[in-house]
Parts: sequence; C-alpha cells; structure tokens
Amino acid sequence: MQRHFEKELEGLKTTLIKMGSLAEEAIGLSIQALLKQDAELAKRVIDSDRRINSLEIEVDNDIVDLLALQQPVAIDLRLILAATKINNDLERIGDHAVNIAESALAYCERRPEEPLLDLPRMAEHTQKMLRDAIDSFIHNDPHMGSTVLTVDDHVDELNREMTTEVIRLMRKDPSLIEGGLQILRVSRNLERVADLATNIAEEVIFIAEARVVKHHAFEEGLTSPKRKPDEGLAKPKENEGAKKH
Amino acid sequence: MQRHFEKELEGLKTTLIKMGSLAEEAIGLSIQALLKQDAELAKRVIDSDRRINSLEIEVDNDIVDLLALQQPVAIDLRLILAATKINNDLERIGDHAVNIAESALAYCERRPEEPLLDLPRMAEHTQKMLRDAIDSFIHNDPHMGSTVLTVDDHVDELNREMTTEVIRLMRKDPSLIEGGLQILRVSRNLERVADLATNIAEEVIFIAEARVVKHHAFEEGLTSPKRKPDEGLAKPKENEGAKKH
Repeated sequence: MQRHFEKELEGLKTTLIKMGSLAEEAIGLSIQALLKQDAELAKRVIDSDRRINSLEIEVDNDIVDLLALQQPVAIDLRLILAATKINNDLERIGDHAVNIAESALAYCERRPEEPLLDLPRMAEHTQKMLRDAIDSFIHNDPHMGSTVLTVDDHVDELNREMTTEVIRLMRKDPSLIEGGLQILRVSRNLERVADLATNIAEEVIFIAEARVVKHHAFEEGLTSPKRKPDEGLAKPKENEGAKKH
Repeated sequence: MQRHFEKELEGLKTTLIKMGSLAEEAIGLSIQALLKQDAELAKRVIDSDRRINSLEIEVDNDIVDLLALQQPVAIDLRLILAATKINNDLERIGDHAVNIAESALAYCERRPEEPLLDLPRMAEHTQKMLRDAIDSFIHNDPHMGSTVLTVDDHVDELNREMTTEVIRLMRKDPSLIEGGLQILRVSRNLERVADLATNIAEEVIFIAEARVVKHHAFEEGLTSPKRKPDEGLAKPKENEGAKKH
C-alpha cells in the first residue's frame, strides 16, 4: 500500500512537471509569435492550450484518488495540497499565453513599425521567473523559490513604466490607441504570469518548510508583498502602499 | 472522532461563507465608490482586503488539519477539495474589488462628467452572479450553480461591447484616454469576477454531483465554455471560436 501510494505521488509530480513545461513553452512561443509577427505560431499556441486544460483535470482527479487511497501526513500532505494550487496556477499561465497569442495575432494585422517598447525585456524576466519557479518545484528547492519572489517587484515596475509610456504615446498619436491597448494587454498578462510564478515559488517553500509566505511574506523580510492583478494603471507614481494585499 | 470531524467541516464551511460575504460586500462597495465618486469608501475597500487575506490563510490551515485528522471520502473529500479552490477564488475576488476601488479613486480625481457607459449594468449582472454562486454554495444547490454559468456569457459580451465603445470615444477625444483606460480596467475586473463566480458555481456542482464541468462543460450542453481573462480586447467582433479554452 505504502509503495503504491509513493508511486502515485511521484506520478502526480511528474504530470505537474509536464504541465509546467507546456505552460513555459506556451509563454515562450506566444512571445516569439509577437516579436516575429508570426500568426501561424500564435494560432498554434491558442490551439495547444487544451492540452494544459486536460492535464489540469487529470491532476485534480489524481489528487482525489490519492487522498481517498491513504491518509497522507506532513510533507506528503503538503505536496498534495500545494499540487492543487500549482495545478491551478499553471492552467492560468496557459490562459495568459493564449491572451498574449491573441494580441500577437491582432498585432500581425497592424502596422509593423508600431513600437513594442520594453516588452522583450519584460518577457525575458518573466520567463526566467517561471523557469526558476518550475525548477524549484522539480528540485524541491525552497531557496531557489525565494529568489523568484525577489524578481517579481522588478516585473511590476516594468509594467508600471510601460503603462505610463503607452499613455504618453497614445496621447501624442491617437492612431496608436488600438495598438497601445494590445501592448498594455501583453504587459499586464506578463505581469500576471510573474505573479503566478511567485505563487508557485511560495508553494515550493510551503512544501519544504511548512511555512506560508504569501500575503505577509514582507513581514518576515523575505520579499516585498505580492501585488494584485492589473495594477499598472493605478496611479503609477504614488500611493504604492495601497497596492499591497 | 467522527463528530469532531463533522464539527470541523462545518466550521470550514462557515468560514468560507463569511469570506464569501466579505468578498461580495467588497465588490458592492467598490462599485458604489465608483458610481458615487466616494474616495473615502474606496479607501475603506482597499484597507479591508487584509481581512479576506487572513481568512484565506485560516481556511488553508483548517484544510491541512482536517485532512490530517481523518481520511475523508466521497462528498466530504469533495467539499474539502472544492474549499481549497473556492478559498482561492474568493481571495482573488477581494483583489479585484481593490482594483476597482483604485480605479474609483483615480476616477474621483478626474472630470466627473466622463461617462461610465454600461458599467452600472455590468456591475449589476456580476454582483447577481456572485450572490447566486455563494448562495448555491451555502445551500449546496448545484441547480442554482448551473444558472450562474449561463449568465457569464452575457457579462463577457458586455465587456466586449464596452471595449469597442471606449476605443471609439478615445479616438474621438484623446483627453478621454486615461479615464477610458480606468473604465476598461473596471470592466475587465468585473468580467474576471464573473469568471470567478462561475468557478465557484462549478465547484458547487462538483461537490454535489462529483462531476467536473470546467473547460468542457459546453460539450455536455450545460453552457458555453468559460472564457479566459482579459478577452475584451481581442478582436471583439470576430474569431470568437479562438477565445474558447
């Protein structure tokens, strides 16, 4: 019984890692589609999301089976509970990749000289965070997880700067309004992916150390608090305190 | 032991219901702050989010205790697993209320004659969905849950219409760009709250009927598929199929 349980638990982890690699790939390809204006690639990303969605349901079912099979305790129980959250986080990352791919499609139809501003740099940071979060899960390495948390602020800052710059460009040339809205959409989606990578890293810390770091991680001096979705627009230069949650 | 477990399970449900009522209130007040241009109220919504966040951690801890205490099966196990998700959904609804309140604050500082367009109607639908989703959880009523699923499409449609209209206004009068971005932000946040209400309703169906309806609910003819976050911008009038996930 115990051996069977361990095998099932290992299987759950393997499925999540597979899902993580699909989510990471989807984000990478959606960004590539945007940068290279590759409509075919964008459509492939949109189509492939169903694989991530079906893995999400598989993981949920495996978790029901695991909990019904045996009464896990301590680290095994924490792994299973973290798995339910990481599963949801990865599925949402897949959705954000679809959003970015949709913006890439819209961008392909527009004038190619419209500026992408700091999006490539923001994408680089976000992809690195996601890769590190998934690696920290694979290697069960809470230290690597906690470095992910520190990069999140930088991506948030890039998102705020991008918002200010896009508004400036739109005001100068109203023909840029629609393109600008797509840029803001991609920026916001990247910022959310960075938040979700942060969530995953927090779960890795929870598995290894039985310590909840979300919401009040900043009280422990580990990092500044995670931001809410969609903060780029809200008065970028002041009242930062109000954005903590 | 069994009685103790039942009491704990009841306690978990009570905490979630309390959290649901706080989340519902936060959304209602954030909308009121926007419509009445009440900066004080907006600030209160932002401050009160920490109560929802601390309840989220409380629920997560209760779930660990419950699973470690006993080996729940069937409907009890489904309730506990659904609770982990509903907990996360409610915390995110609280975050969206904060976003809306931040936009209300920004809106208070702007010219009061700027149009709110269809936001009041959209807010009404979204609040009704959220109320019904939480009620369906309270009364363990999957039928009520499935009616929530059908309203989601309407809110998505309102969000798309709003996006088209705001772009038209911005083009006509570039001084409306910043205000328009706040309107889009609120619209998008309401659309996300409607999605999260849908998630909660799906979980209620899962608890009662052991049936997963997300992602492929449409295959069973129950509803059209749930949309991704942030879809308002993506080519509002065509290619609807690509938006399914």
